[in-house]
Amino acid sequence: MTSPIAHPILPNGDSGFTVEAASMKFGRGMLAEAGNDAKAMGMRRVALFTDPHVAGIAPFAAALDSLKAAGLDVAVFDRCAVEPTSASFLEAADFARDGRFDGYVSVGGGSVIDTAKAANLYATHPADFLAYVNKPLGEGRPVPGPVKPHIACPTTCGTGSETTGVAIFDHVEMRVKTGISSRYLRPNLALVDPATIDSLPPGVIASTGFDVLTHAIESHTARSYRSRPKPDAANPRPPYQGANPWSDIGSLQAIRLGGQYLERAVNDPADEEARDALMFAATLAGLAFGNAGVHIPHAMSYSVAGMNHRFTARGYEKANPMVPHGISVVLNAPAAFRFTGSAEPERHLRAAEALGAEVRDVSPADGGAVLAARLIAMMRATQLPNGLSALGYGAADIPDLVRGALAQQRLLTIAPRPVTEENLRELYADAMTYW
Amino acid sequence: MTSPIAHPILPNGDSGFTVEAASMKFGRGMLAEAGNDAKAMGMRRVALFTDPHVAGIAPFAAALDSLKAAGLDVAVFDRCAVEPTSASFLEAADFARDGRFDGYVSVGGGSVIDTAKAANLYATHPADFLAYVNKPLGEGRPVPGPVKPHIACPTTCGTGSETTGVAIFDHVEMRVKTGISSRYLRPNLALVDPATIDSLPPGVIASTGFDVLTHAIESHTARSYRSRPKPDAANPRPPYQGANPWSDIGSLQAIRLGGQYLERAVNDPADEEARDALMFAATLAGLAFGNAGVHIPHAMSYSVAGMNHRFTARGYEKANPMVPHGISVVLNAPAAFRFTGSAEPERHLRAAEALGAEVRDVSPADGGAVLAARLIAMMRATQLPNGLSALGYGAADIPDLVRGALAQQRLLTIAPRPVTEENLRELYADAMTYW
Repeated sequence: MTSPIAHPILPNGDSGFTVEAASMKFGRGMLAEAGNDAKAMGMRRVALFTDPHVAGIAPFAAALDSLKAAGLDVAVFDRCAVEPTSASFLEAADFARDGRFDGYVSVGGGSVIDTAKAANLYATHPADFLAYVNKPLGEGRPVPGPVKPHIACPTTCGTGSETTGVAIFDHVEMRVKTGISSRYLRPNLALVDPATIDSLPPGVIASTGFDVLTHAIESHTARSYRSRPKPDAANPRPPYQGANPWSDIGSLQAIRLGGQYLERAVNDPADEEARDALMFAATLAGLAFGNAGVHIPHAMSYSVAGMNHRFTARGYEKANPMVPHGISVVLNAPAAFRFTGSAEPERHLRAAEALGAEVRDVSPADGGAVLAARLIAMMRATQLPNGLSALGYGAADIPDLVRGALAQQRLLTIAPRPVTEENLRELYADAMTYW
Repeated sequence: MTSPIAHPILPNGDSGFTVEAASMKFGRGMLAEAGNDAKAMGMRRVALFTDPHVAGIAPFAAALDSLKAAGLDVAVFDRCAVEPTSASFLEAADFARDGRFDGYVSVGGGSVIDTAKAANLYATHPADFLAYVNKPLGEGRPVPGPVKPHIACPTTCGTGSETTGVAIFDHVEMRVKTGISSRYLRPNLALVDPATIDSLPPGVIASTGFDVLTHAIESHTARSYRSRPKPDAANPRPPYQGANPWSDIGSLQAIRLGGQYLERAVNDPADEEARDALMFAATLAGLAFGNAGVHIPHAMSYSVAGMNHRFTARGYEKANPMVPHGISVVLNAPAAFRFTGSAEPERHLRAAEALGAEVRDVSPADGGAVLAARLIAMMRATQLPNGLSALGYGAADIPDLVRGALAQQRLLTIAPRPVTEENLRELYADAMTYW
């Protein structure tokens, strides 16, 4: 294997990369340790965040029981919104401020974990809501210091929120998705218990599982960290640093586990080994993309999800019609990797191999195509929609889809080659139908 | 590849594992960022720890210049002992207390980093020296809370100290090596700059490089975390948890990089790619063994080094006669892996493959032997001593060697199979001569 360290440093390019600390526990039964962990962090009065659905399932009860058994005073906030908004963040912050908590535990998907981060922030360092929100919508003011300890317990395998310092929300009035970013928002501990996904139906495992896979493959095929400008005090290293030897290890192993276990995890809900492996892949992929970044498939997904509120995916029959995040991403992925393959051929070939493709007689030049073909085979095997056309999109939608993707320059700049408006038109066209 | 998650949980065995946070930066030029990083952590008056040798070389100057350029007030302590003792820790602690520092930077090997940890601890939370020292020599009192921020900059590739919460020293009067362990002692940031090892001679790269390899292979072949008892509030998870899916990723990649680059890094001091890769392998191996643990080769090394003060290794001609740590470990390794192979055959075979052995037609039953053979070939190619006999040991020394190893129960219990006194006798005999 080529050493990723040997990647040439471009003129004035960066020569190093940063790995931010993230503590975690992984394994079945870890939620039962929440109480002792909270106590060890000095918590006495705990805010336990969740959403109305998760509040009714076993993982939530396990965490609550553990906190109580440890003798902690627990107040539950179960009104986290599935798609958080500025309003739902503010409601949670009011709860947090009134409760005078000395610690936070969140049990749920990314939306619950993000809501707990925001509530903790505004209760600890009160400010106008837009003060800490990323520019240009907000002021982008730095979080002034540490917040109260927070233990994050993910109950889906798509989010990486349990190990990042980012909280995402919809600003409804401005019709834009944005967030708050600070290293102080990173949970002090991620408790990752694969038992939390045992009850998820196949369609939900498929959508969130492909989100994991795209996190991992996009991290692995991102531009090299050595192609970015050297940081200085005025322009520090960005959170998304590009692919580097650290992120590569996590991303490749996540791709391997996904290739080996995703279909099993979707098709047999009783296959604990497969769901454990998928949850671990999610954790690794979360660490990898939080460090390296994601690119074209995620950039393209914003308009795919944002423009469609008519689609009902398998496993989401009880929710309002919408395109689940993982589906809105992975439907772009084969087209994107066919396009990016020429920029980092060996990385695409290595990702294809890790995903389970036969690559013995394949030249690196075909890496992107082989990777796309293997992804498409996995999508078929797990009954995913056959491209964007299966969501109802057609050629007439492409200009609007492109406009949404172009707004995601933060992600497009992580791609291993430049992405023009014309490229995006071709990518959406290529993503319409795969088989 | 078999999923390590699928390893069976033994009755009442643990079902999870913990990953402690460790922040780091890796790459050439990272020492020049020390000043900005220290400032970002709120340091103004900094204690810069090093030893008399490192004080005279370029990496130290790079760190010092960076701290001064950031406008920090720096006081240098350059009297760290190469083999720290209670006395040298106390001298450093006096310096730290008198200086009223708000942060620490250490530039050197594990001894320098460990000395800075101890000085920071006793200056921040004053106590009798034995209060925080591990039982049974010390009281093992828990460190009461956070210490001042510490940036650790390793200048050798053997230590893992930059990412652990352990400080090791010799208690001269009691003639025993012990230490202080607390998560609060973990440096807040490891700055790993491979340029620091450019000036090391081939013999030193060989010794420290094989230390890296044994860290990685011992972590990978350690007992499974699932064979340990489940933790509870009274008996929490130990720091050395056994091999787990997290440590496996780092250990395997460190073995791969070592197999590919160690010989090049030893034999061509100008091969920057190889030395970069070895330094990155050291970082990964440090994280892996700090999490999973090391076992027989390290347990056997204490008496090998402790009983011999006559040997002079290549590259260590200017030091007092002694067996360098990496050599005292790796000379036991082929014998140890022949012995442990039967307990975890597939793990040994996978390690052998990662190290570069041809394994196509090898059955797992021969994994330990193939791994040992590949290690021996690498030892020959880098001019290491031919077994313990080359250090001057013979059959008559075995009882004393065994006595020293038996005292390291903390490490022997990490082995994948039980290790008796009789086993140790056979292991030392097997380690006398390899070719």
